[in-house]
Amino acid sequence: MRLRNLAAIVTLMLVTSNADAVHKTEGFRPASQTVSKTLAERLGYPRDTKLLIVHADDLGMAHSINTASIKALETGLVSSGSIMIPCSWLPEIAAYARTHPEADLGLHLTLTSEWSLYRWGPVLTKDRVPSLLDSSGYLYPLESEAAAHIDAKEAEAEIRAQIARARALGIQPTHLDSHMGTLYQNKALFDTLLRVARENKLPIRLPRELVASASFLPSLLTPDDIVIDSVVSIDPSVSPEGWAQYYTDAIKNLQPGVTEMVVHLAYDDEEMRGVAFAHPNWGSEWRQRDFQFVTSDAFRKLLQENNVKLITWREVGKLLRGGKS
Amino acid sequence: MRLRNLAAIVTLMLVTSNADAVHKTEGFRPASQTVSKTLAERLGYPRDTKLLIVHADDLGMAHSINTASIKALETGLVSSGSIMIPCSWLPEIAAYARTHPEADLGLHLTLTSEWSLYRWGPVLTKDRVPSLLDSSGYLYPLESEAAAHIDAKEAEAEIRAQIARARALGIQPTHLDSHMGTLYQNKALFDTLLRVARENKLPIRLPRELVASASFLPSLLTPDDIVIDSVVSIDPSVSPEGWAQYYTDAIKNLQPGVTEMVVHLAYDDEEMRGVAFAHPNWGSEWRQRDFQFVTSDAFRKLLQENNVKLITWREVGKLLRGGKS
Repeated sequence: MRLRNLAAIVTLMLVTSNADAVHKTEGFRPASQTVSKTLAERLGYPRDTKLLIVHADDLGMAHSINTASIKALETGLVSSGSIMIPCSWLPEIAAYARTHPEADLGLHLTLTSEWSLYRWGPVLTKDRVPSLLDSSGYLYPLESEAAAHIDAKEAEAEIRAQIARARALGIQPTHLDSHMGTLYQNKALFDTLLRVARENKLPIRLPRELVASASFLPSLLTPDDIVIDSVVSIDPSVSPEGWAQYYTDAIKNLQPGVTEMVVHLAYDDEEMRGVAFAHPNWGSEWRQRDFQFVTSDAFRKLLQENNVKLITWREVGKLLRGGKS
Repeated sequence: MRLRNLAAIVTLMLVTSNADAVHKTEGFRPASQTVSKTLAERLGYPRDTKLLIVHADDLGMAHSINTASIKALETGLVSSGSIMIPCSWLPEIAAYARTHPEADLGLHLTLTSEWSLYRWGPVLTKDRVPSLLDSSGYLYPLESEAAAHIDAKEAEAEIRAQIARARALGIQPTHLDSHMGTLYQNKALFDTLLRVARENKLPIRLPRELVASASFLPSLLTPDDIVIDSVVSIDPSVSPEGWAQYYTDAIKNLQPGVTEMVVHLAYDDEEMRGVAFAHPNWGSEWRQRDFQFVTSDAFRKLLQENNVKLITWREVGKLLRGGKS
């Protein structure tokens, strides 16, 4: 997702185990999850089970991303992914979704277009969503710029159009999240995401750490909203040499409950190097490193040795749909 | 361009030297070119000069196409190219156009989206140009389907928007042509292309063979429209083994006057194989073969030995702009 702020927050939480933040986190917990059962228990697991969604972001953005992500999904070590509807490689991943209805695929709702040589616009028309477009006619490059300019009503129309387009192409999304976290940037945008997700009975990427740290968040939530326990996402502070160690530590330190590990998969090939031109963060080598790790025997062994059970967003979302897939 | 019908017509002409067609061709010639001077003479060359525009189509469609076409332009053996404005790799070729204002780049006006896994829509909004979109919300895959459904007024709005978008991105087009020849499919569409080109004082891909064979065409032309002498474009009847021979014969048989040789350049890489999935015609290997040939020493030598002079559309277009670039 390149949910930068969230990634930074989550990394901070993981690294420091900040007591104050933990305290704040415990201060908020939707009633249905605290009073009676934890999310893990609601999913049918013992309270101390370590449940992990290994999630590939940015599907549909590039052929390199699609092929690497599909390969990783098929190893069984990546359990979920989310799709960017406005991008030109959407038909490729939509074809995969149609022929693999069991695949756990959500929508990576897209309100930004961050690269320099390769860009995209919204699904809706310029007339309908002028606040979404920068001066060149594409979506804004940065989530902060986007959030500063976007009219939440237009964002709502656009994400509804993205969901409708996905369904029209035969994609049955199991969850929603937000490319680069744009929909988490302010209260109006997050409220939009939350309302659209509730209407569609789909869970969103929402860890307790974020609820604790974003002041606007707790007042928007109801006891029926699903909050997962943690999100793990590597960030630019990790050196290429430290990549495997970061993920190894993250798995070894995994706490009981539901964690989503967000990865960005692609091959370090000509296309991906062109897409991420002059942008090493979340770039071509970054994605190749993520791919190497999550498809490695070391990762498989690590999950086994640490008693980590992979789950999907579909299982989580069933709680919102009365047990229906 | 994948101007299939035109390619077929031109190939037929080249291969058979069909006397009847030549007769018909001679029957039409804009007054300014026949009465006084040939196009070659108007460009300042002796009547018997063999002038060639080596033209790369489809720029902006894929990174593989952009990088191969730029490399070929920089060898000096490809003299021109045209850009597809609705495609996501437009920013890459627009950046090249801005930093290389001398490059002879036109617009490959785009009303089709022909591949299965990688697609694009129009520049204008769905509300404005509904007749351009197929049921999946992209441009029609085939030029024949597109021509059957497109309202010429909407086509006109869209191609004007493509030109405006190109200019906004710093592209100063030297000529116009039509992806897959969609704008050559019927009188209403061709009339649209012609009017927009005249207003913009830009030449279009229009060989005498086409004027002779398309019954609707002569009545639309005026003596001020520029008609080139020939277009050479390889087609699926040529086997991969016969590729170099086809081009070699085409150069050896080149007639005096202005010929445009239309090529489609890309690398046979993962991205291009994905774009052209299950579509060998104008596909990945096809484009690699074109690239190999037009960047080869054999091609350079062939041009020298046959006294072929490379020119650009900019030179041709100056005739429409009172000598201005």
